[in-house]
Amino acid sequence: MATSALGSRSPRLDAADKTTGKAIFAGDLALPGLAWGKFLLSPHAHARIRRIDTTRAEQLPGVIAVVTHRDVPDVLVGELVKDIRLFQKDKVRYIGDIVAGVVAEDLRTAEEAVKLIEVDYEVLPAVTDAEEAMKPSSPLIHEEHKSYQTIPPLAEAFKAVQGHNICWHTEIRKGDVERGLAEADHVLEETYTAPMGHGAPIEPHALVASVDAQGKVTVWTATQVPFVCREQVAEALHLPMSKVRIIAPPIGGGFGAKCQAWVEPNVAAMAIKARRPVKLLFTREEEFMIGQPRHPAKVHVKSGVKKDGTLVARQVRVILDTGYSTMLGPIVSSLGSMCAPGTYRIPNLAVDVDVVFTNKPSCSAVRGPAGPQTVFAVESHTDHLAKLVGMDPVEFRLKNCWDEGDEGPTGQILQGVGLKEALRRAAEKAEWGRPLPPNHGRGVALAWWLTLAGFGCAVTVTLNEDGSVTLQTGAVDHGTGSTFGGLPLVIAEELGIETDQISVINSDTDTTPFDYGGVGSRTTFNQAHAVRLAVQDVKRQLFERAGQMLEVSPDDLEMKGGKIAVRGVPDKAIPVLMLTHLAPFTGGPIVGRGTFNTPPPAFDPKKATVKGSVSPTFNAPSFGAQVAEVEVDPETGNITVKKVVAALDVGRALNPLGVEGQIHGGVVQGIGIALTERSEFSEGRMVNPNFVDFKIPLITDIPPIETIVVENPADNGPYGAKGVGEPPVIPTAGAIANAVCAATGARVRDLPLTPERVLEALRRRG
Amino acid sequence: MATSALGSRSPRLDAADKTTGKAIFAGDLALPGLAWGKFLLSPHAHARIRRIDTTRAEQLPGVIAVVTHRDVPDVLVGELVKDIRLFQKDKVRYIGDIVAGVVAEDLRTAEEAVKLIEVDYEVLPAVTDAEEAMKPSSPLIHEEHKSYQTIPPLAEAFKAVQGHNICWHTEIRKGDVERGLAEADHVLEETYTAPMGHGAPIEPHALVASVDAQGKVTVWTATQVPFVCREQVAEALHLPMSKVRIIAPPIGGGFGAKCQAWVEPNVAAMAIKARRPVKLLFTREEEFMIGQPRHPAKVHVKSGVKKDGTLVARQVRVILDTGYSTMLGPIVSSLGSMCAPGTYRIPNLAVDVDVVFTNKPSCSAVRGPAGPQTVFAVESHTDHLAKLVGMDPVEFRLKNCWDEGDEGPTGQILQGVGLKEALRRAAEKAEWGRPLPPNHGRGVALAWWLTLAGFGCAVTVTLNEDGSVTLQTGAVDHGTGSTFGGLPLVIAEELGIETDQISVINSDTDTTPFDYGGVGSRTTFNQAHAVRLAVQDVKRQLFERAGQMLEVSPDDLEMKGGKIAVRGVPDKAIPVLMLTHLAPFTGGPIVGRGTFNTPPPAFDPKKATVKGSVSPTFNAPSFGAQVAEVEVDPETGNITVKKVVAALDVGRALNPLGVEGQIHGGVVQGIGIALTERSEFSEGRMVNPNFVDFKIPLITDIPPIETIVVENPADNGPYGAKGVGEPPVIPTAGAIANAVCAATGARVRDLPLTPERVLEALRRRG
Repeated sequence: MATSALGSRSPRLDAADKTTGKAIFAGDLALPGLAWGKFLLSPHAHARIRRIDTTRAEQLPGVIAVVTHRDVPDVLVGELVKDIRLFQKDKVRYIGDIVAGVVAEDLRTAEEAVKLIEVDYEVLPAVTDAEEAMKPSSPLIHEEHKSYQTIPPLAEAFKAVQGHNICWHTEIRKGDVERGLAEADHVLEETYTAPMGHGAPIEPHALVASVDAQGKVTVWTATQVPFVCREQVAEALHLPMSKVRIIAPPIGGGFGAKCQAWVEPNVAAMAIKARRPVKLLFTREEEFMIGQPRHPAKVHVKSGVKKDGTLVARQVRVILDTGYSTMLGPIVSSLGSMCAPGTYRIPNLAVDVDVVFTNKPSCSAVRGPAGPQTVFAVESHTDHLAKLVGMDPVEFRLKNCWDEGDEGPTGQILQGVGLKEALRRAAEKAEWGRPLPPNHGRGVALAWWLTLAGFGCAVTVTLNEDGSVTLQTGAVDHGTGSTFGGLPLVIAEELGIETDQISVINSDTDTTPFDYGGVGSRTTFNQAHAVRLAVQDVKRQLFERAGQMLEVSPDDLEMKGGKIAVRGVPDKAIPVLMLTHLAPFTGGPIVGRGTFNTPPPAFDPKKATVKGSVSPTFNAPSFGAQVAEVEVDPETGNITVKKVVAALDVGRALNPLGVEGQIHGGVVQGIGIALTERSEFSEGRMVNPNFVDFKIPLITDIPPIETIVVENPADNGPYGAKGVGEPPVIPTAGAIANAVCAATGARVRDLPLTPERVLEALRRRG
Repeated sequence: MATSALGSRSPRLDAADKTTGKAIFAGDLALPGLAWGKFLLSPHAHARIRRIDTTRAEQLPGVIAVVTHRDVPDVLVGELVKDIRLFQKDKVRYIGDIVAGVVAEDLRTAEEAVKLIEVDYEVLPAVTDAEEAMKPSSPLIHEEHKSYQTIPPLAEAFKAVQGHNICWHTEIRKGDVERGLAEADHVLEETYTAPMGHGAPIEPHALVASVDAQGKVTVWTATQVPFVCREQVAEALHLPMSKVRIIAPPIGGGFGAKCQAWVEPNVAAMAIKARRPVKLLFTREEEFMIGQPRHPAKVHVKSGVKKDGTLVARQVRVILDTGYSTMLGPIVSSLGSMCAPGTYRIPNLAVDVDVVFTNKPSCSAVRGPAGPQTVFAVESHTDHLAKLVGMDPVEFRLKNCWDEGDEGPTGQILQGVGLKEALRRAAEKAEWGRPLPPNHGRGVALAWWLTLAGFGCAVTVTLNEDGSVTLQTGAVDHGTGSTFGGLPLVIAEELGIETDQISVINSDTDTTPFDYGGVGSRTTFNQAHAVRLAVQDVKRQLFERAGQMLEVSPDDLEMKGGKIAVRGVPDKAIPVLMLTHLAPFTGGPIVGRGTFNTPPPAFDPKKATVKGSVSPTFNAPSFGAQVAEVEVDPETGNITVKKVVAALDVGRALNPLGVEGQIHGGVVQGIGIALTERSEFSEGRMVNPNFVDFKIPLITDIPPIETIVVENPADNGPYGAKGVGEPPVIPTAGAIANAVCAATGARVRDLPLTPERVLEALRRRG
């Protein structure tokens, strides 16, 4: 394999397990003495708790323990801002807030017991609309907001959040927007909305928690962030991290719905009180109602453009409804501020993002958080601008979009910008401009996204006695193919072995080193660096041992064809396999370690044009362009997506099968966001928490998806690679919306593009 | 804790799990789709296989697979000499030889199916006595012996094994024994025997094997040697090691009965054919009949002594019955050659050890292999010699036993010899010489033992964000307290933290680095070195980071009271906890690695007086003396052990509770060996394979055991420590036998010292 492993079309190492149903997920686990857990959830969107009486529940035969706030340390926890209680004490803040947990011999008994817990509530007025929530007249969801603790890097920005029910605020100011708008030939002002959505992984949250006699807690959980879970469990339950072990078994999809440590401390507390292993599986209804959805967004955008199509000013106001707690709100706010203005040179720019508390579930960083919603808005708006100045949408974008060295919205100088190449190649492949039948249309959208850096990771690479390799990495693989697809290729490349000689052990906080988690499209980018360093460490040890045996300096050696030879003297060589076989009896086992942390991109904070951002720059940004082709039935308003061409600048495709898989998956989710997905609420209660009423695309809804891999290397990426997990989902809804408008002349400004809304827009168009 | 962790009386980290029954053993494991395995065992001690027909078994409802030699690669395997087939093909060699394996939905069906397998045997004459087996007239057990493959270091000695049914031969020649004997004033010649015994762990062999869709095999097995199991499974089934994972859960005792990779490949093969996870538990009867017992021994010893008590010559011939296969025979042979001559200066010495094949179970390296048997013989003989010259047994030993710098039997110059101190302190504590009531007697015995070196190991020590620590080590802990007792103390000592902040993850070939296994009293000795190096690596990383922050060289820093400070400037310091909390965001997680391999003791092979030894020197030898006090009922011959004083030179007791526990446990096993334990055979079939008829000591049989820890540091031991697992079992039977003789004047020369034999000896005495 040698020099051709990277970039080869090699199946991932877990492919057979996944496709044959052999993989053992958290929900499949059994332990001796396993008991079942069930949460009591708040039936009210907002209420004061007067009394919790668990007596009757505890007396039900088969009940082992009932856990409430009285059984856990009286603390608030949270990854960024500490505003969460494991079990509610004084107040519930949404329909689904966890009040108690029951552990019983079987699930049915646990369900029965939950009903026997008596809670006296004093119902409070609730607010479930973000704009309403911002009004001083609305009920306050966190009366004690200003007293909450935050992690040190957020302290200053947190202090600045003073508004009513405001969770976070990010703003960008560049140039002079008012003057820019005044100087424009055309000014366009529009409002777009996107509803609450959901990552909708096929596997709902699933956990098994167990405690040994020494008090050590082990939680097997379908999580994207085992190490964050460890920290949160330790903090919430006052345990040292060495007494908390989090294992993430294979994960049946995450998409950000599993990227917060959230119910892990609860189930751990239940196992501790019950002194029994506890399994808790979310029902689909629970997954939808209290799982971690995508933020509903309202995007108000106003732009000024010259007659020749030059964008001169843009003002964007984004309101994100984040639900009852902070969780990752500040991060989603920051990301939204980067996506909302679009991928264009705009000298005068003002962006305001408000992330607002409501009495709804806490939204999360669902794949490309804030991306699809804001890009749908700004890219629809961009098409409208092009129309105003009479330009073709592709041409308009080529005129205004970023090039190498341009300045991004926050003052970051952009490098490795493959945006125009992506756009040109996507347009070409989609036969942009070629006439289409009536009621057919093509639409285009652009987006960019970051590769999360700044969290170090370590890996170990062990060279076994027979020359085979075991990689230990803290990285999860929630389906992306990074861990089981990309990383083995790095080892194969660097050691010159086949991937079937490689085993990957991952995502166990006790046996694999720290990794921040499967978020921010960061896994391959960060881990591949560490893996390469670990292989170098392995090689160094081999060279040292070979040097001793050959009586030459390790520096004079090279590795070639399974041997370590003196440079220029190929006969003076030792087979690697001899060194590995002898290792236990000579220098000891060969274990290589790689530790890596990507420094944040160069950026002068004094020149920053952004406030309240936890991510003022995009590291190793990837740039994408998608063209969608649709047919709209003018009688029914029904949209059929005929084709999507998705071009993405991935820096370098280490694992092309994985990259294409990510693009396919992203586009499919983008189609769902565009056409059907919507969590519907009535008085704070989600009314469609099932796959009949919350429609994700079926296989029959998926058109041909053509992928274009643009390779514009990132200078700090491993072998040039950039993150690829999230970007593909971001432009799809915008491209489809623009295609619908191209097909019909009618613009729908609210996601999803339901037939009713299309018909309504057609009526408006007249 | 800081500088006082080592040597403190700190409970081991797994103590609560073990004592409360919370520990999950291999037999407790469950997996989705778990099936049950059962072996078909040979009913004949020696027979040719003409035909195996599995048809009827396969047709039984509930049977998933029947596995025979046809289902596995046609190879012979074995750790030292390749003479084992997983499933027998042409021949069976003992009652219990594995012929086939059945996998079924439940155990009862598996048991039924085993009976339905039809095997045509041609019964061959069997030989079950070692001396008989050595005769040219006896049946040959391995016709093809000379064609077997061996590992390269044994090749030459293996070639020299030409005798009939001889598995291995070791010999020592020093001085001129014939002349020495001729010059002696007294010559004494005696023969002693010891029967087949058994480590008799409370947990029989227990395995669960599972195969994933990629063909990777995982075996959870109660083994002392997971990494050897990995090698053997990979070799036997033609898999790369990266496709074999061995996990040793907590082990319910090993004592050498679980120190060979033996049935793991079989159960793996069964899981592969069944495509289902398979659990196989030995019954107690199987554990006794086909488990790995202690070698029966016959020891013929002849010594010459001067009137003044000076030993001048000794000739020892040891015959060890090793059963049907080589397994660890060469190692047991080598160890026997070191123990059989005793711990004395003997200028003229000849030792011959023959390890002989018989049609019996394959014996293993049970705790102190060949030690208790040969030391019983030589120490009984030594008492007899003392009597001949009219000396007190302690005095006689003090006159002849080794001192610092003496030469051992193979030419090794002995260092760190705490033998006389152990003897003197044991005698003093036992009130040696103080008169006893009638029928009471005291006896003494000496022994030495090695600490196994020469196998490297590695560990990782991870410093978590909150300053707690996770140790990953390949070492098993089969009850010795090394891994969960001693190693945490090394970390606590070196990092200045409490042991409750430490978590130990161990004995999993995929997540913990190579370790040879829990054999040869080697764990603490080798692992503690590696742990210390790993902690140094952690500290180096902390110092580097602190140096960067304080803008000083890491060399100018010191760690004190939880801080890293500039030497001499205590105010210029950074808390370790700040460095750990920041680690993921700065240099990455702090993972320390320690790799260590103890070089073998200095020894000039040209001066070696030994041939056919795989262990010509004893590394970091420990020296022990035990005094037993017994009462003998002259009417019944019944022996009551009243007290045992056990002194052991352990170099340094890192974990005193563990050291004392090892001594207690060893003496208890020694009492069983002395008084009751014996596997009885009739025509090749063990007739007492149960705890009613094979009697191990009950708690009511255990007298007060007084321990004396002698600390005579080993210069290559971690902090001076030597191995302590095996030595305590070795002298006990000899001391008890000598005590019985002191009480009665009658000597029993065969173990165990049953009432019948005592009465017989009393009759002989008259």
